[in-house]
Amino acid sequence: MIIAIKQGVSAEETDHFAAMLERRGVKVDISRGASQTVLGLVGDTSSFDPEALAAHHLVAKVIRVQEPYKRANRLFHPEDTRIDILRGGGAEGVQGANGAAGAASSIGGGMFAVIAGPCSVESPEQIIAVARVVKAAGAAFLRGGAFKPRTSPYSFQGMGCEGVNLLLEAKKETGLPLVSELMEIHQLELFDGIDIIQVGARNMQNFNLLKELGRSRKPVLLKRGLASTVTELLMAAEYIMAGGNSRVILCERGIRTFESFARNTLDIAAVPWLKQKTHLPVLVDPSHATGIASLVPAAARAAAAAGADGLIVEVHNDPENALCDGEQSLTPAAFTELMASLRAYAELEGKRL
Amino acid sequence: MIIAIKQGVSAEETDHFAAMLERRGVKVDISRGASQTVLGLVGDTSSFDPEALAAHHLVAKVIRVQEPYKRANRLFHPEDTRIDILRGGGAEGVQGANGAAGAASSIGGGMFAVIAGPCSVESPEQIIAVARVVKAAGAAFLRGGAFKPRTSPYSFQGMGCEGVNLLLEAKKETGLPLVSELMEIHQLELFDGIDIIQVGARNMQNFNLLKELGRSRKPVLLKRGLASTVTELLMAAEYIMAGGNSRVILCERGIRTFESFARNTLDIAAVPWLKQKTHLPVLVDPSHATGIASLVPAAARAAAAAGADGLIVEVHNDPENALCDGEQSLTPAAFTELMASLRAYAELEGKRL
Amino acid sequence: MIIAIKQGVSAEETDHFAAMLERRGVKVDISRGASQTVLGLVGDTSSFDPEALAAHHLVAKVIRVQEPYKRANRLFHPEDTRIDILRGGGAEGVQGANGAAGAASSIGGGMFAVIAGPCSVESPEQIIAVARVVKAAGAAFLRGGAFKPRTSPYSFQGMGCEGVNLLLEAKKETGLPLVSELMEIHQLELFDGIDIIQVGARNMQNFNLLKELGRSRKPVLLKRGLASTVTELLMAAEYIMAGGNSRVILCERGIRTFESFARNTLDIAAVPWLKQKTHLPVLVDPSHATGIASLVPAAARAAAAAGADGLIVEVHNDPENALCDGEQSLTPAAFTELMASLRAYAELEGKRL
Amino acid sequence: MIIAIKQGVSAEETDHFAAMLERRGVKVDISRGASQTVLGLVGDTSSFDPEALAAHHLVAKVIRVQEPYKRANRLFHPEDTRIDILRGGGAEGVQGANGAAGAASSIGGGMFAVIAGPCSVESPEQIIAVARVVKAAGAAFLRGGAFKPRTSPYSFQGMGCEGVNLLLEAKKETGLPLVSELMEIHQLELFDGIDIIQVGARNMQNFNLLKELGRSRKPVLLKRGLASTVTELLMAAEYIMAGGNSRVILCERGIRTFESFARNTLDIAAVPWLKQKTHLPVLVDPSHATGIASLVPAAARAAAAAGADGLIVEVHNDPENALCDGEQSLTPAAFTELMASLRAYAELEGKRL
Repeated sequence: MIIAIKQGVSAEETDHFAAMLERRGVKVDISRGASQTVLGLVGDTSSFDPEALAAHHLVAKVIRVQEPYKRANRLFHPEDTRIDILRGGGAEGVQGANGAAGAASSIGGGMFAVIAGPCSVESPEQIIAVARVVKAAGAAFLRGGAFKPRTSPYSFQGMGCEGVNLLLEAKKETGLPLVSELMEIHQLELFDGIDIIQVGARNMQNFNLLKELGRSRKPVLLKRGLASTVTELLMAAEYIMAGGNSRVILCERGIRTFESFARNTLDIAAVPWLKQKTHLPVLVDPSHATGIASLVPAAARAAAAAGADGLIVEVHNDPENALCDGEQSLTPAAFTELMASLRAYAELEGKRL
Repeated sequence: MIIAIKQGVSAEETDHFAAMLERRGVKVDISRGASQTVLGLVGDTSSFDPEALAAHHLVAKVIRVQEPYKRANRLFHPEDTRIDILRGGGAEGVQGANGAAGAASSIGGGMFAVIAGPCSVESPEQIIAVARVVKAAGAAFLRGGAFKPRTSPYSFQGMGCEGVNLLLEAKKETGLPLVSELMEIHQLELFDGIDIIQVGARNMQNFNLLKELGRSRKPVLLKRGLASTVTELLMAAEYIMAGGNSRVILCERGIRTFESFARNTLDIAAVPWLKQKTHLPVLVDPSHATGIASLVPAAARAAAAAGADGLIVEVHNDPENALCDGEQSLTPAAFTELMASLRAYAELEGKRL
Repeated sequence: MIIAIKQGVSAEETDHFAAMLERRGVKVDISRGASQTVLGLVGDTSSFDPEALAAHHLVAKVIRVQEPYKRANRLFHPEDTRIDILRGGGAEGVQGANGAAGAASSIGGGMFAVIAGPCSVESPEQIIAVARVVKAAGAAFLRGGAFKPRTSPYSFQGMGCEGVNLLLEAKKETGLPLVSELMEIHQLELFDGIDIIQVGARNMQNFNLLKELGRSRKPVLLKRGLASTVTELLMAAEYIMAGGNSRVILCERGIRTFESFARNTLDIAAVPWLKQKTHLPVLVDPSHATGIASLVPAAARAAAAAGADGLIVEVHNDPENALCDGEQSLTPAAFTELMASLRAYAELEGKRL
Repeated sequence: MIIAIKQGVSAEETDHFAAMLERRGVKVDISRGASQTVLGLVGDTSSFDPEALAAHHLVAKVIRVQEPYKRANRLFHPEDTRIDILRGGGAEGVQGANGAAGAASSIGGGMFAVIAGPCSVESPEQIIAVARVVKAAGAAFLRGGAFKPRTSPYSFQGMGCEGVNLLLEAKKETGLPLVSELMEIHQLELFDGIDIIQVGARNMQNFNLLKELGRSRKPVLLKRGLASTVTELLMAAEYIMAGGNSRVILCERGIRTFESFARNTLDIAAVPWLKQKTHLPVLVDPSHATGIASLVPAAARAAAAAGADGLIVEVHNDPENALCDGEQSLTPAAFTELMASLRAYAELEGKRL
């Protein structure tokens, strides 16, 4: 961190300010130029808030040189993280990219993982039908919402515990590991059979929830908030990792902008940026990012070409009568076609689908 | 709700679709023009999702005519809601604008309420000093954070329970009712002495939290999410109100846009828009909206002139050494000066400060 | 400008880089700390592009300390600029805030100037009727569009030269100085009788147009682009001023954000920010900023309370049948009522309406 | 266009309003439901402004069913437009996707066209060196700026006419057709040897310029404004096409959002959306969209995978000393590597690079 001192500040005041900073645990280099005095902070500045420092009356500008995230930072962990989920739900582990993996579904480290399923679990018939379809098409994970965040209190809120049980049946039927969204920490005990806990975009900065998940052993699929920067996404991952859970999967799902032809704006360049900055796997959700089924395949292929480690896609056996998100759900046929085309794109990026 | 049917759809298909809609509890008027068939849905359409309907293959466009919020809607509750907090913490109530209120601090219905205090409680000396200053300057409520949502897990997270206790002491000392932010529902029991529960911008769509607060008897100060529309803000209020708690105070605190000179962009026109659409009180937070102390007074006066029912302002006795948000906190002197000038603006809007 | 050099760069490479910078006309202070080498550039860095410098392989970060605008900068011109327009169109001048002004309409320097009129000139009856109404209500200038920028080539494009002539008649009739939008530089000769040239939001970065206006002697009302930062607005003003025309009036008219209840988002905090950074007058256009007539009065009062030097407001004698922008135009009655209320707000800010 | 009439409006008033609409050249179907009266406008509604209609006191809501663009609309021109530029600058034409094309460089209709070159022409050596490099790597067009739109009047503004002449030399040397940005209509005569006229993002709604280009016979590369919707982009194309010039190439180049890790946010989903709505070719500019050279290759591949008809990419032989945009320019080596990888992506999308 570099702090430019205002012009006209005396050497004594500067020394006094530097000493105060050193008491907070960093070493301070003072560089006095003819026209500008600059402080260089050496050491761990992750607890220093640049905006707070900028409030000080001696300070002209503050510049972070070091990134504020540590555990998620590729600088300190150059190798890609791969997260393995044993089919059947047995032992799991984080491994380097070349680790052996038995009969596991993996995310990251050379795999291109597709998570697919309906927005919400609606009935035994629906979830099992969709599970079979997405498995046959090559998906490695089944998604389905049991607890649904809905803008209106009068909209369908999900099937709750019953929905979780139906997911477990679909897993038994197909062997596909499960991904489902947790809306509050109490629900964690119900999620014993769920393989990956999803944190939705609206909860990306629910810091208490993130801290609790840091104490969990479950992998976490962390969706980017719709007005969150990629740095804030990494800081949210850092909350989970700081608690001891390093199995975090990031997910770009579109951000909110002035443009309204699509539900959100898919920030495709976030994918290569994240891949440079972090070792964590990066997925893309083309369904929420676009909100329009006919745009999903192109967005999915773009994600693969941009270097994503996989996708999370909404598929419904009867989109027109879906209880939520029907307009963005692929039909089984459209999903099967997409999967067939994706394989070649993943291979061009050196990944296995 | 109006549904335009695609061209070329047969009368029979349209009738079939209309019958399906009627089974979901509305009456459907079918208007067949020479070139366009249009369905008018009559009755309570609040559980109909326009985007889901738009996914149906017969549908060209869907238009909501009715607002999706009911309890928050001024149409069904024309009179301003006023929320009274008895100083000393006794009986409380929602009243019409002219209700008598004893020695109460009130928000809405002709009052211009100023809530002031530090971003976070830091020490007994700090909170009591600030409480005295803001009371002397005319603030009606004391704010202070005990549990702080911070972007980084390595930043100061607030004093927790001890912070709550210090707030209670400041209340005992000054008589000012308290406003503090709740980050998860478990903390509610700790908030017994807090008069108004604040829901932060990041939790505006934490629907489980909103539902729990719907069961509480405490007034709720609901801050707009930084990428939330004003309609979504009203729907979040609706979650609380649908649970039986109608004492909701809305707060505009700036939205996230491309412009970065200020921390956020204060959406000042949201104030008159909200005042037209809802009977709930509308406050403005000029501190978070701008993030720069020197812009706070102008933003505060603009809020008063735009018709806000009050403000929530950060004040710190030593902004340069504040543990958070120092750059946007007013000094006691600046706050006192602001309050002196605000009175005239509030009066021009027909409100008492 | 401060340049942080990457770690591991040799002293020799740094010296070489510094020498290259000095050849471009600045003095470079090199501060070598134990962990960080920092260059301080002294002199006029306005032609240095921070992003271009950041591309250099030795550079870690670049920070502008000095603002990139000079002529518009309050630092070098502390006193407010006031622009006087003689009624009748005679001699004009830029003066300090206390300069005498005869029978002039003024903008800036203690005046609160209201420019009002229809979106576009439609007929002699319309423009003269509106001119009389706005004059009677206290407006100091008449606005009206002759050349209209319209999103669709199939929409009404303005009356062109005939519209300009009708504006001149309205000026003769009422004595009100005129403000009208120029869409390309050729039109300048037609604008001889127009007192203030308006540059629309879409042309804010039409740099060739700005350069030509820099050679003109007409005051320029420069509207902020709908995705332009306030710094870019000042740089656009700088283009005009660099050409020798210092009579520039800035206008905040709303920016484009995700929020769609209003046509744009009025960035009210830009007003006090601009007033701090520049000596130029700052107006607000509440009509385009909100796009909804019922929100205009509150937005206008907020602008006055935020410290604006005036307003530009759309008024139409028959908004329902206006050829453009009817939904945001005030009726004569609503405008008259607004003007009556504005006087008190302007006075509170120490300005004369 | 569908107009929902407010409740409580009499049949007579509605008839009167419908008659007024019919006088403006459409047929109006009136559908009177039990609770809602709806007007359906039949015919060409492209000159009707939905916002203006919404201002009428009888109107509850207005919904466009028909798109506001006609000539650019794929509905009326289902086949892809291909634009052929004869190498050597001879006869040119718009053809259907299967038209023969001699020794032409083509954009659209099954070709994947890459336009590459420096941000600005700086010297004979620079432009010829870059032209050779990009040709060798497979680019079909050379780009280079002679007139540069720069935020600051103090930045390098381009070489002007001399820059144009250097481009012509590079064309003679390599045979590559030229793409260069026109900043105002006067410059058109200087652009005789330029094969495709680029309209920059800041000029996308410079309607007078668009109208003039509508009278030109040159193909136009129209870049999306940084706060323009895709519908506005199509309306800008419509301005050019309405004047008789149907050779318009659209270019997505990133939009301005709250996210700042990249210079802009590449709106990748705009590509498939535009391909559905229009027959015009759609390019992507990954250089301006990201602003960071290391993100350009992933963004370029994503564009190909999303179905773009080509790219416009900045390449510089010495990015560190480029006079503009160095931080986003690819080196010759990086560009050559990108081109090698792109071929496979284009083929997967059924296009020839």
